[in-house]
Amino acid sequence: MRIVVDAMGSDDHPTPDVEGAVLAAREFGETIVLVGDQSQIEAELAKHRTTGLAIEVQHASQQVTMTDKPSEVVKGKPDSSMHVGLQMVRDGKADAFVSAGNTGGILGIAMLRRIGVGRIPGVKRPAMGVVFPIETRPLLMDNGANADCKPDWLVQFALMSSLYVERVLEIENPRVALISNGEEEGKGNQLIKETIPLLQASGLNYVGNVEPKEFMHGEAHIGITDGFTGNIMMKTAEAIAGYMSNLIRDSLMANPLTIIGGLLARAAFAKVRGRLNPDEVGGAPLLGVNGVVIIAHGRSNAYAIKQAIGQARRMVEKEVVAAITEGMKAVS
Amino acid sequence: MRIVVDAMGSDDHPTPDVEGAVLAAREFGETIVLVGDQSQIEAELAKHRTTGLAIEVQHASQQVTMTDKPSEVVKGKPDSSMHVGLQMVRDGKADAFVSAGNTGGILGIAMLRRIGVGRIPGVKRPAMGVVFPIETRPLLMDNGANADCKPDWLVQFALMSSLYVERVLEIENPRVALISNGEEEGKGNQLIKETIPLLQASGLNYVGNVEPKEFMHGEAHIGITDGFTGNIMMKTAEAIAGYMSNLIRDSLMANPLTIIGGLLARAAFAKVRGRLNPDEVGGAPLLGVNGVVIIAHGRSNAYAIKQAIGQARRMVEKEVVAAITEGMKAVS
Repeated sequence: MRIVVDAMGSDDHPTPDVEGAVLAAREFGETIVLVGDQSQIEAELAKHRTTGLAIEVQHASQQVTMTDKPSEVVKGKPDSSMHVGLQMVRDGKADAFVSAGNTGGILGIAMLRRIGVGRIPGVKRPAMGVVFPIETRPLLMDNGANADCKPDWLVQFALMSSLYVERVLEIENPRVALISNGEEEGKGNQLIKETIPLLQASGLNYVGNVEPKEFMHGEAHIGITDGFTGNIMMKTAEAIAGYMSNLIRDSLMANPLTIIGGLLARAAFAKVRGRLNPDEVGGAPLLGVNGVVIIAHGRSNAYAIKQAIGQARRMVEKEVVAAITEGMKAVS
Repeated sequence: MRIVVDAMGSDDHPTPDVEGAVLAAREFGETIVLVGDQSQIEAELAKHRTTGLAIEVQHASQQVTMTDKPSEVVKGKPDSSMHVGLQMVRDGKADAFVSAGNTGGILGIAMLRRIGVGRIPGVKRPAMGVVFPIETRPLLMDNGANADCKPDWLVQFALMSSLYVERVLEIENPRVALISNGEEEGKGNQLIKETIPLLQASGLNYVGNVEPKEFMHGEAHIGITDGFTGNIMMKTAEAIAGYMSNLIRDSLMANPLTIIGGLLARAAFAKVRGRLNPDEVGGAPLLGVNGVVIIAHGRSNAYAIKQAIGQARRMVEKEVVAAITEGMKAVS
């Protein structure tokens, strides 16, 4: 298996991207192709012991920044690490693409067959899944690829994510719910109300609508939402978790007693942080494109990159793209 | 001033509702009218020392439950405590209405002048504001009254909430932002994109779009959103805060060292809980209806009810309804 890793992706690129690739090559024994500025990648690789590891470098002369607009990236940077990496997947020279770069850029390039991998036949809109970093590990989809959605797109999200969860997370017949502002009949916005009958008729394991709390408690394995709501929901969760962590840290510094208490309870806090750590869950799979594409957080460290590569590997092994291709044929 | 309190509102009614009314009568020295089942209210009042307090009882023969559908409440329970209480405000027999009951029911009744208070002339849709229970205390609006919104409704939400924040929270020229999935131009869903130019031309202190994290950090005093997104955002914040609190509590019980640490750091945790306590901030003002209406959480305890009554009192004192009425005239 050959997995392409965008060396120019993360906020601190190429350091965590290259180190993550080295860790992955060592742990998984697969070939990792680092794509990006060759001299920068080689300088970074020189810092690691890579003897015996299957690591290749593919030069790309351009680089996408976090502030580049997707439309400019797609047209204006044809030799970016994203273009070059995704084309390797399209042309069968690699099996998967992993990047911690500009999400809009990856989406824009990946969607188009001419410059990226293109869509799976029948897929109206590819979408991003993201595992909520809480104990029950539910998948939220769409996490931001499509700000405005139509009911039949949401049904496709449900189909694609069900196949992903079934194969990669090995949960049989996963429970699918719509994220809504209430579980009762009559709740939801127009989009939700129009999607309900379509999901009921879909043959998927649709269990109804869930509020955020019930979603986190594991009432569903998959929460379906438009990309705007999903993105706001994920960002709210991250913001509150960060806010509370800071508040607790600051409160513990208040007086000698709380400082000692905090030190004694250190193990407990480390455990809480570990449970909430988004690095553990890898990146967000972009489902519906004709290839394995994993989008990692811009703030990824080497460990998070390695986890995202491991996730790409499982998607290749479990043939998720082929499953979605078959799934789309079956419903069209 | 006379404030009507729905004695049949909260999940544990009439206990916290009546006790909150007693606390409010004592603290604020205003007349509180408890509306609901007379015998239940009187039995509850008998548990408190009410000598010298201005507390009245107004009987209402019907009661709205949390599972009643709004449409059924509006038509089917014409003598509910909500109907009777809101009509007292409409008819000038009271200055404000506070309820911790079924939100959909209150909204449905309050909107209609025939059975409730009706809208302020020119207001397309009343909406609920809610103070985010974090340090910066930003106001989020709409919190769930309108699942699907139009751009000009959002502009009205911005106008009404600006007047509320200016008067009740005493923040001059409050900063208004749209809640979005990114701050950059081009981000947002269709609703956000269409609202931007309207807000820019509104004369309000519109500072752009904010993501949840920046909203919580205080970049804006007011975050405007449709009621679906706002409700999901608030519920996600509550769910994550609850999840983390439980996780910390459980982790602290892991071993003797962490238990001792937790005991020593008790003051710190109490402080964190205090900061995040939604009871402090009172209830959600329903802005755009022709009277002061505060909707408190169903889980309100007596203290939360008392705070909500205090909030209603400030809205009356600061003449928020008159200000919105004038504001609507100025823009139409």
